[in-house]
Amino acid sequence: MIKLYYAAHTCSLASHIALEDAGAEYSTVRISFAAEEQRKPEYLAINPKARVPALVTDNGILTETPAMLVFIAQSFPQARLAPFEDPFFFAEMQAFNSYLCSTLHVAHAHRMRGTRWADDASAIAAMQRKVPDSVAACYRLIEDRMLRGPWVMGESYTVCDPYLFTIAQWLEGDGVDPAKFPKVIAHRQRMSERAAVKKAIAEELA
Amino acid sequence: MIKLYYAAHTCSLASHIALEDAGAEYSTVRISFAAEEQRKPEYLAINPKARVPALVTDNGILTETPAMLVFIAQSFPQARLAPFEDPFFFAEMQAFNSYLCSTLHVAHAHRMRGTRWADDASAIAAMQRKVPDSVAACYRLIEDRMLRGPWVMGESYTVCDPYLFTIAQWLEGDGVDPAKFPKVIAHRQRMSERAAVKKAIAEELA
Repeated sequence: MIKLYYAAHTCSLASHIALEDAGAEYSTVRISFAAEEQRKPEYLAINPKARVPALVTDNGILTETPAMLVFIAQSFPQARLAPFEDPFFFAEMQAFNSYLCSTLHVAHAHRMRGTRWADDASAIAAMQRKVPDSVAACYRLIEDRMLRGPWVMGESYTVCDPYLFTIAQWLEGDGVDPAKFPKVIAHRQRMSERAAVKKAIAEELA
Repeated sequence: MIKLYYAAHTCSLASHIALEDAGAEYSTVRISFAAEEQRKPEYLAINPKARVPALVTDNGILTETPAMLVFIAQSFPQARLAPFEDPFFFAEMQAFNSYLCSTLHVAHAHRMRGTRWADDASAIAAMQRKVPDSVAACYRLIEDRMLRGPWVMGESYTVCDPYLFTIAQWLEGDGVDPAKFPKVIAHRQRMSERAAVKKAIAEELA
């Protein structure tokens, strides 16, 4: 059976929602960042990157949200969470998730995880000051060019949706004005009403 | 016909090599970063992110290297560049590419692209100072945990290989000691001997 290692308020929520969307049988293990459990030997044996999420499967362990989301979609084809039969549409979906992972999430991470990229306090503070602008620039592209509506890829709900929803939880905390991104906020609201989303969030915050 | 927009010495080389590996018919357009062509209206109409690569296909335009690499593999199945029929192996391949894109490439980018994440010169200098350590930490994981040999995923050559090869071009420039990563360097050498790699590089540097 699939086991998801997650931490509350992190990008692991995307995979958690996707497992619900897929109708998967799975269990979860909560990792406490406050207790630095992600750096303890027990967890490093699961994921030497010291990050969440990690997905333990019958075949081995997976990490990296874009890869995990597609794995979940491919493992539960009846849920129709990714269009494998259409290479271009599938690539557009993957491009969206890759942008979230490597540009938007990275811009956001400069608020709380600056020590990944600089050591001195003034540099870390300078990174934090730029987060509202750099994160907003990502949402500008998503709002104007990427998010088709009602779902990210248009009429088809895909694994892009839980991923955008998850990252959009951090928008106000990053100092971005939600009023400037009405499509993103409407998508976040639409997602929040889904039973799968409510169930995953309730479990993570229990 | 497929058209690749690339810039020399960037991650677009990965897709260029993959197109050669696939035996694709394609054309290329060189974007000069020195002339800031990536920010000109003509290119922003292709890719509003003002980055390379971009791939113009019969169905539309794709960006984001991990998505483009899988699209190339899926469009030319006879080249067997990705194991679509094995969801777990495919996910491991995607996880590797996602790590290159969102962690290793991002660590590297703090050397030359610090203005993405901070405005003041001292912060940008602080980011540059950390690049040798943050990039080396990524290669430590790749060397010890990810790169199976002879190819990234083991006996099967996949689209992970041109991507790692491309990013490993920057290793010495990032201040990382190649002697500490013999598997990565052997892979880079092995790749450099392939005809597809030689052809793509020769075209980009012509």
